[in-house]
Amino acid sequence: MPISIASAASTQAAEAPAKKKQDSVYVQPTGEGKLVIGSLDDLEARAAEVIPEGAFAFISSGADNQVTLRRNRKALDRIQLLPQYLVNKPAPDLGTTLLGHKLSMPIITAPMGAHGLAHKSAELGSAKGTGEAGTLYTASTPSNETLEDIAAATTGPKWFQLYLHDDRELSRDLLKRAKDAGYSAIVFTIDAFAPGASDETIRSGFSFPPTLPLVNSTTGVFKSSLGWDDVEFIQETTDLPLILKGVVSPEIAKEAIKRGVAAVQVSNHGGRGLDGVPASIELLPAVVDAVNGRIPVIMDSGIRRGTDVFKALALGADAVALGPPVLYGLALGGSQGVKSVYDRIGAELSRAMMIAGVANIGEIDASFLYNKESA
Amino acid sequence: MPISIASAASTQAAEAPAKKKQDSVYVQPTGEGKLVIGSLDDLEARAAEVIPEGAFAFISSGADNQVTLRRNRKALDRIQLLPQYLVNKPAPDLGTTLLGHKLSMPIITAPMGAHGLAHKSAELGSAKGTGEAGTLYTASTPSNETLEDIAAATTGPKWFQLYLHDDRELSRDLLKRAKDAGYSAIVFTIDAFAPGASDETIRSGFSFPPTLPLVNSTTGVFKSSLGWDDVEFIQETTDLPLILKGVVSPEIAKEAIKRGVAAVQVSNHGGRGLDGVPASIELLPAVVDAVNGRIPVIMDSGIRRGTDVFKALALGADAVALGPPVLYGLALGGSQGVKSVYDRIGAELSRAMMIAGVANIGEIDASFLYNKESA
Amino acid sequence: MPISIASAASTQAAEAPAKKKQDSVYVQPTGEGKLVIGSLDDLEARAAEVIPEGAFAFISSGADNQVTLRRNRKALDRIQLLPQYLVNKPAPDLGTTLLGHKLSMPIITAPMGAHGLAHKSAELGSAKGTGEAGTLYTASTPSNETLEDIAAATTGPKWFQLYLHDDRELSRDLLKRAKDAGYSAIVFTIDAFAPGASDETIRSGFSFPPTLPLVNSTTGVFKSSLGWDDVEFIQETTDLPLILKGVVSPEIAKEAIKRGVAAVQVSNHGGRGLDGVPASIELLPAVVDAVNGRIPVIMDSGIRRGTDVFKALALGADAVALGPPVLYGLALGGSQGVKSVYDRIGAELSRAMMIAGVANIGEIDASFLYNKESA
Amino acid sequence: MPISIASAASTQAAEAPAKKKQDSVYVQPTGEGKLVIGSLDDLEARAAEVIPEGAFAFISSGADNQVTLRRNRKALDRIQLLPQYLVNKPAPDLGTTLLGHKLSMPIITAPMGAHGLAHKSAELGSAKGTGEAGTLYTASTPSNETLEDIAAATTGPKWFQLYLHDDRELSRDLLKRAKDAGYSAIVFTIDAFAPGASDETIRSGFSFPPTLPLVNSTTGVFKSSLGWDDVEFIQETTDLPLILKGVVSPEIAKEAIKRGVAAVQVSNHGGRGLDGVPASIELLPAVVDAVNGRIPVIMDSGIRRGTDVFKALALGADAVALGPPVLYGLALGGSQGVKSVYDRIGAELSRAMMIAGVANIGEIDASFLYNKESA
Repeated sequence: MPISIASAASTQAAEAPAKKKQDSVYVQPTGEGKLVIGSLDDLEARAAEVIPEGAFAFISSGADNQVTLRRNRKALDRIQLLPQYLVNKPAPDLGTTLLGHKLSMPIITAPMGAHGLAHKSAELGSAKGTGEAGTLYTASTPSNETLEDIAAATTGPKWFQLYLHDDRELSRDLLKRAKDAGYSAIVFTIDAFAPGASDETIRSGFSFPPTLPLVNSTTGVFKSSLGWDDVEFIQETTDLPLILKGVVSPEIAKEAIKRGVAAVQVSNHGGRGLDGVPASIELLPAVVDAVNGRIPVIMDSGIRRGTDVFKALALGADAVALGPPVLYGLALGGSQGVKSVYDRIGAELSRAMMIAGVANIGEIDASFLYNKESA
Repeated sequence: MPISIASAASTQAAEAPAKKKQDSVYVQPTGEGKLVIGSLDDLEARAAEVIPEGAFAFISSGADNQVTLRRNRKALDRIQLLPQYLVNKPAPDLGTTLLGHKLSMPIITAPMGAHGLAHKSAELGSAKGTGEAGTLYTASTPSNETLEDIAAATTGPKWFQLYLHDDRELSRDLLKRAKDAGYSAIVFTIDAFAPGASDETIRSGFSFPPTLPLVNSTTGVFKSSLGWDDVEFIQETTDLPLILKGVVSPEIAKEAIKRGVAAVQVSNHGGRGLDGVPASIELLPAVVDAVNGRIPVIMDSGIRRGTDVFKALALGADAVALGPPVLYGLALGGSQGVKSVYDRIGAELSRAMMIAGVANIGEIDASFLYNKESA
Repeated sequence: MPISIASAASTQAAEAPAKKKQDSVYVQPTGEGKLVIGSLDDLEARAAEVIPEGAFAFISSGADNQVTLRRNRKALDRIQLLPQYLVNKPAPDLGTTLLGHKLSMPIITAPMGAHGLAHKSAELGSAKGTGEAGTLYTASTPSNETLEDIAAATTGPKWFQLYLHDDRELSRDLLKRAKDAGYSAIVFTIDAFAPGASDETIRSGFSFPPTLPLVNSTTGVFKSSLGWDDVEFIQETTDLPLILKGVVSPEIAKEAIKRGVAAVQVSNHGGRGLDGVPASIELLPAVVDAVNGRIPVIMDSGIRRGTDVFKALALGADAVALGPPVLYGLALGGSQGVKSVYDRIGAELSRAMMIAGVANIGEIDASFLYNKESA
Repeated sequence: MPISIASAASTQAAEAPAKKKQDSVYVQPTGEGKLVIGSLDDLEARAAEVIPEGAFAFISSGADNQVTLRRNRKALDRIQLLPQYLVNKPAPDLGTTLLGHKLSMPIITAPMGAHGLAHKSAELGSAKGTGEAGTLYTASTPSNETLEDIAAATTGPKWFQLYLHDDRELSRDLLKRAKDAGYSAIVFTIDAFAPGASDETIRSGFSFPPTLPLVNSTTGVFKSSLGWDDVEFIQETTDLPLILKGVVSPEIAKEAIKRGVAAVQVSNHGGRGLDGVPASIELLPAVVDAVNGRIPVIMDSGIRRGTDVFKALALGADAVALGPPVLYGLALGGSQGVKSVYDRIGAELSRAMMIAGVANIGEIDASFLYNKESA
């Protein structure tokens, strides 16, 4: 049963008229400029005013009851920190290195499909803004701009996230193009089934606008039955380092290391996959233990605050990936909006480090976690 | 103290005028057609717009403070799942077998009274829709259509749920009619006292409309003091397999097996019985342990999502029964609405299985449960 | 520092104009008649429409943040029950005996001050309604009707709750009058300091209306520093059995028994005393253990449902006392309203017993408590 | 990286127009008079009506998601108390002694900046009101009145809270002035980084009004990298006793004692520092254990009720400090409003002591804590 990212959400909507018909021509937001940001969470409501309803539902909603989506946040908020004081630390340095890339902060852009839903500059804007923030961009297979144009749009490092086609030849072609375009690693998402099939997309009758084609492949239909043989296929086809995204257990992490994977990304797909999966931050420690420092561990799903980043790093992550807030920044301010998002969360991380008594990213460890049970 | 399903709710309402007088003629919903369903939970609010107020209260409300009703949902939402990835599974097959019946999915229609409150097609519509969804229908003694007509309305397998009369002869007659009409099992509800006596039915002054008689027996008054001798009576009277519904403890389950019961149904009557009883999903594991695979275990009360079904099966249930959402589908779209309900929850279960890495119902087991404490 | 029930709430209100000036003449509710009651909780909102604002605040509010008031309810709702089925029980008999009195149900009226705030019939109405419900009335020292008139108003058993005066002679007089008027026991409230001093009474500028005098004593000022010598004084002054109300620990219960007290009443004054005290139902088990069946244990604070009564009895209480709902019933329907309150909670208890499989009050025990941790 | 209290909140706001432009001239509240106070919490909403929006956000908001701000309250509310009854206690005496000062109650005014935002009398009003309440005032370095004028405004004892300048000479001058003006101790805040940088201050575009200068130093920029050498500097520079504020761990408390510090103040800066730090009341017990009675332990952050004070003292604090409610009282009633705040919380503490069975502050100990797990 192959799956189509473009049609998954609208399967049922075909059966009867949806409550609100999409306009025949999709109207993309066009705002450009720096943003004043109270918090990254604020951006969700502000973006909802400029992104058409169905597309906003596609971007913002989690699966089913959204238990996992909410849990991603709650579990982060429950973690308690204890600062160290009177330790004479200099101003915090947020810089870090990830798979050989120097980054301005341990926060990168997660792969997400169809940025054209959020802004007319689509992936060109998000890539440019990410690069201007001095950090790494992950381009997604189902994008509205070609992977080559995206690569050219950012001044920073970039990875290419691969959805496999049933037709190996199409995948081989994408891998070759990614290398040629200058991507330095392949991110293979192992949990990408039925994306965006949230209640709200069904209610809103959302379907991908025909005016916003996914241009990287002739088909928007991807391989849904995945196995370690697919990992082998990618490794045989490209010599780029491979990152597995969607790692939820130590078992998968260990097998990945055994097979020479370059990094793992702990993720529950932002609560968009199977509802009921624990928070990503809850899954992190067991994976960190299993990896035991041999390869980098990236974590996504639920990151909204500088303190979230601090907590993930204290629990052993090397970096975190930021998802929807990047699209909200894009929708509200184009590439400058994306940069504002990074500026804000970077400032928050800096402030957290300053108060906690931490001079650089490497000093963030479990000693800052307060061990009492929370409530 | 015999009890009457028709009068239980209105005992106090007779003492003073209720806040909203029922119309003298009950206006049944009449909608027909497929439904676009964001979630089964959405249907409750939508059905409230077409079902008259008092009847909607009767259908939707739990007992007293509705602690058990809410707990049924919360306990399901608290259970955490952990998918397996990269396991090369084919597209999920939802088919299963229950007491010899092949079903399209491990979800059946629970016995509920008086479907005429929800739709003019009454039990004929819900039976037909259930059959068209390829699964099993449980007809209830207090129905607005005769058990014979109900049997004829569905193309799928069917069971008959029995409320006993104090007069054994009336019960013998019902058991004989059920067999003659083609029902393949008897469901004996052991927790059916004072049904529907919720605060909201009292507030709304609800009483059963005289224009919607319960046609299966000359009396709507049932035996309220039940014992194992009643189980014996049923087993002596009919050779149909017997299913005990309302099993809440391993003790009852073991006694049931000792007495040759064919299956048990774990249930707290959808939170409509004794408020304060644990969630059905919390009661399930001990019963599953006690049964130890000797007979099928069905579970109801609170099932609204494909992931709920997955969780119940992971905890050892063989199938689940669906209650009010069937009536909401019926109210909104007749038999086609009922089928839409099954289509939606079936699609959700299929998606959950696909993401979790499960090819068929038999593969769903406790290995998919995440064992950390929840919050 | 003697305290005055009449002035406690208004201490600060004197300093500045309150947000809503009380009318110069207090307008008492006058409704008479049976009530249709969805739940006893419903009565609170309904009573708020007929009782003047400040008085309603005095009756309904807990102390400070009302943590204890809410906890009284939450702790009851958290207790889980497990019915027994197929046990062939006859219809439930709610009758019980308390200190020699036959009661229609194990629920009595708690002592509360100034019923004239709730209804023109004041304590005469609440006493009459309680008697007509077949159960026991506790008259309070600070009442708007004389203890003699209250005694005459009820056909049921009655106790007199004593607030001590600093002047022993005044207290001796009250004890003598109570015996003469036919009260069969003295309830000594050991936690009655600064009653009714809730935020909302201050906000509303409430003070006791001069038109509603507390007629049992020439002074509304009571002894605030209490000791076991006061218990001795009462026991020496009257030969009526003595009940200590406000027992929160096994230590006090044991000392009470040692001193020949006839019964203890576990209570946190309905959340009106020290905010932060555990729920009354949480305090009950340790007291029950300490008492070990030697004298009756009554429990109040938070009882609103038949299942609450069932839970209290399952945890070892012999009876429970009902507070504000009696005043709400009084406000809405006079003595008949009070009887409706008892009818409703009695019906709920009967239904709970029927479903649980309990034939009489004596059969309610810990075997019906479900032991898993709640949420 | 030196920090500026005046500019921290407005860093981002400079980038784009804020949603609501501050008036060019800041309009200070001017109300004078006693207040009727339902609860100190009520004052927040009332103060929001008189304090300009951005300034109110600066005063009332916690950092980031305000998890710590809310947790300060929740953790206090979760602590359970058990009164002792029949103990013959006289009326409570709230008086206590702190570092040699006799106080009317164990509650003092915490150091807070820029009282001119709350009232035209600024620190003169809050100092006067605190003194009239018979308790201790802590003046803050960034104040709108000179430390000399503040000292003259109160009849009570007073401490001076120091923010260090990078320039030691400026700090030496402040310490000398503080001693000359009659302050009896120096409070050194060890967690004062990036104050007031809440989401809401950013959203409101708040910046310190130029018409309300911070008059104690020629610069509003303070030293952000602190160490024990700074503690040594203060101790070498002044012979006034030194209090460390912001102590969150037993390690810091022990080091403080080793270095001759006179008292420690457990605090999370009212939830305004690092979001995610435990509630102050949760941090208290470990510090109390470490201190072991050798020096006084003061606690702030979240105190709003007399029972909060009782709980802090039961857990080992010698006194608590009150923050925003003092400013709200000031905003609403000037110095008299501040006194009303103390009158109210003092009355609450007195009532709590009376009910609990406590005659004086020294009797409040852990025996009044109820040890069961809370919910």
